[in-house]
Amino acid sequence: MLAKKMIKVFDGGLLSIPPPNTVWKGKVNMVSVAIMGHGVVGSGVAEILLTHKQKLFSNLGEEIYIKKILDLREFPDSPIADRFTKDFEEIVNDLEIRVVVEVMGGLNPAYDFVKRCLKAGKSVVTSNKELVAAHGAELLAIAKEENVNFMFEASVGGGIPIIRPMNQCLVANNVSEVAGILNGTTNFILTKMIEEGMQFEDALKLAQDLGFAERNPAADIEGHDACRKICILASLAYGKHVYPESVHTEGITKITLDDVNLAEAFGYVIKLIGKVKKLEGGKIDIITAPMLVPFKSQLSNIDNEFNGIMVRGDCTGDVVFYGKGAGKLPTASAVVADIVDCCKHLKARRFLFWADGDGKNIIDYRESVSAMFVRVTGDGALDKAESVFGEVNSVADGDMTALITPEMPYGVFEEKCTALEADGVKVLSAIRVGDI
Amino acid sequence: MLAKKMIKVFDGGLLSIPPPNTVWKGKVNMVSVAIMGHGVVGSGVAEILLTHKQKLFSNLGEEIYIKKILDLREFPDSPIADRFTKDFEEIVNDLEIRVVVEVMGGLNPAYDFVKRCLKAGKSVVTSNKELVAAHGAELLAIAKEENVNFMFEASVGGGIPIIRPMNQCLVANNVSEVAGILNGTTNFILTKMIEEGMQFEDALKLAQDLGFAERNPAADIEGHDACRKICILASLAYGKHVYPESVHTEGITKITLDDVNLAEAFGYVIKLIGKVKKLEGGKIDIITAPMLVPFKSQLSNIDNEFNGIMVRGDCTGDVVFYGKGAGKLPTASAVVADIVDCCKHLKARRFLFWADGDGKNIIDYRESVSAMFVRVTGDGALDKAESVFGEVNSVADGDMTALITPEMPYGVFEEKCTALEADGVKVLSAIRVGDI
Repeated sequence: MLAKKMIKVFDGGLLSIPPPNTVWKGKVNMVSVAIMGHGVVGSGVAEILLTHKQKLFSNLGEEIYIKKILDLREFPDSPIADRFTKDFEEIVNDLEIRVVVEVMGGLNPAYDFVKRCLKAGKSVVTSNKELVAAHGAELLAIAKEENVNFMFEASVGGGIPIIRPMNQCLVANNVSEVAGILNGTTNFILTKMIEEGMQFEDALKLAQDLGFAERNPAADIEGHDACRKICILASLAYGKHVYPESVHTEGITKITLDDVNLAEAFGYVIKLIGKVKKLEGGKIDIITAPMLVPFKSQLSNIDNEFNGIMVRGDCTGDVVFYGKGAGKLPTASAVVADIVDCCKHLKARRFLFWADGDGKNIIDYRESVSAMFVRVTGDGALDKAESVFGEVNSVADGDMTALITPEMPYGVFEEKCTALEADGVKVLSAIRVGDI
Repeated sequence: MLAKKMIKVFDGGLLSIPPPNTVWKGKVNMVSVAIMGHGVVGSGVAEILLTHKQKLFSNLGEEIYIKKILDLREFPDSPIADRFTKDFEEIVNDLEIRVVVEVMGGLNPAYDFVKRCLKAGKSVVTSNKELVAAHGAELLAIAKEENVNFMFEASVGGGIPIIRPMNQCLVANNVSEVAGILNGTTNFILTKMIEEGMQFEDALKLAQDLGFAERNPAADIEGHDACRKICILASLAYGKHVYPESVHTEGITKITLDDVNLAEAFGYVIKLIGKVKKLEGGKIDIITAPMLVPFKSQLSNIDNEFNGIMVRGDCTGDVVFYGKGAGKLPTASAVVADIVDCCKHLKARRFLFWADGDGKNIIDYRESVSAMFVRVTGDGALDKAESVFGEVNSVADGDMTALITPEMPYGVFEEKCTALEADGVKVLSAIRVGDI
């Protein structure tokens, strides 16, 4: 009977009694994992675990065995079709499954499932930025309590290593700022506007046709997706959960070709930036908004669907990470790296933690200081603008003028704009100048 | 007596009897480390360990205590002057010291000291690329045998996290290529030539004046430093040690302003690139040489003293890491991250390993295929070049012509150049066009 079971272990089959990490004769150890969700990322995770089996084994010294895949749909043509289940209980109650991968997306039932898996003593890996941004602190606390791992490298920057380098490699730094192009869809749209002079709507349609944007693109173009990601990075960098609701968020729907062209005249490109900065006194200034990025910035030439993240440390200076921020295999490869790390740390937890936050460490966005790029029109617009903002650099284009104001709190800027409008000047657009 | 010792533990003092990891009343654990070398990087490591003590403690859950610093010089003004020693035996024979940092540089006595520390059961962290490139496989084998860690994040890219992300985050990828700007000194010189039209000698002198280049700059400008780093990355990526002697290496001393300007006319910048590529059949093509990098490449705008490394994985696509490749605190912060990782893995080794290599997996550089940028002069030079290379893109400048050849093995290119010279054409320069 035992011999029969051992054989089944060797062919990657039906191991059911011995605990994981058992050393078998023939030295084939294995760790059983489950994958919840078989969509784009989930099927990519299964694919990598199967196709890169030997490489993973030689790194880990153990075989990663996909014991269950949870999905409500049927996949009769999958090479591991027999391991699909529609019943979450089969996963959470299976003592052999030590690592569970959540790649379903959305908050429900992902949140409930992840919580129950952690409480059942399983480590959890997720690519779900919505989940981490909404419940990260709670899930990390449960993981700590249960002495298991909760990892989410793929939730920010897709295939770009960022959570682990920030947490580990930069442990010897006080991070003063993190800023990034965190959403590939909007970056693709802005790149097409900048490089090919496409209108926003046309660029969005192209992104949808190419599969970079969803039919309902609101989460991307309104900035919510980028906001979730900067919340995760801010929570990690400063140790307190930052909830997306606390972060002032603007999308790119109001950006026009006039903005793009006049920004270029000043030596900038427009990018959707998620940014968090530690202020003297310890509070943080966090925002998601389109910003003017100077040509000389490393973030300025991160184009198309790519992502880039700059981490500014007191010892390292600026470090930038660049790559594909989304997509099946890039995202799945980040998930698999987390699975391997969980398998290596089934007994000893990795340190990855932040406390809950109440938003009191975040300044109001009206207090946030930056220079502003403004496009105005109306009789004597430039003179009136200079009487309000002081002397400014300006570029005229037909009957409109673009200018860059001195640095000031956003609330002050709003008041000045109100005064300008009362004086007969129309403010066509106002975009922050990013100091990045 | 015990009470007295406990108090001494609390003020970071003279702990000498209890083993590391002892849980004390008050929950202050500590790990004792030693630092060999108190030069630029070594003093930076000590500085970060002292100034970032609280941050490190909150990540590690233990205090990192500098028990000994090895240096032949005296540092009476150091806040920890009492912990300096000139005697290596005091470190290797101290059972409490669990992690030893080697930041002396050079091969001797670093090689002997590191080997003895590993054999004494201590984990070792080094920033010494010369040591890792020359003896990495042997030292990793000893570390494996002794069940301790040998880490060297700082040996490549200074403060840029690259060894750990490559080893861990990209574990789910087959890496097809790694290419990087790995030496800040040469990148600074080339940037000054490109952006300010400085001559090589003037740019070198400026680099020396600013402290970016050493008085004897040979290791940098001849490409040896970059070569060591690409050897380390190649060994890591492909699992077999690549010795610098096996790698064709060219420096930047022959690059002229004419090369820089004419490369720009074709849409390229010239960078010193370390590059390794896996070929079909499993062999690798590795080289260190100046290359033409297209403007659109992410490596093209990595300027001045900065480094950038591109890792091309089958799942992630291209991932680029950018930052300061040298300097006291950037390098020291990478060392400290390794120290923390060693402290977390005193019992369980981290997987970081490659086998020894005999160079048989490396193709001869004459077999390596690339397009070439060539600058020629002489009567009918372009016509003669086209009769040898086939139709080419060319740019004329006075009595010289620059052209880019089709791709061919370097050996074939050399033969064609010999034929050209026999035909009365002078080949002024020949630089590889990097496919990066």
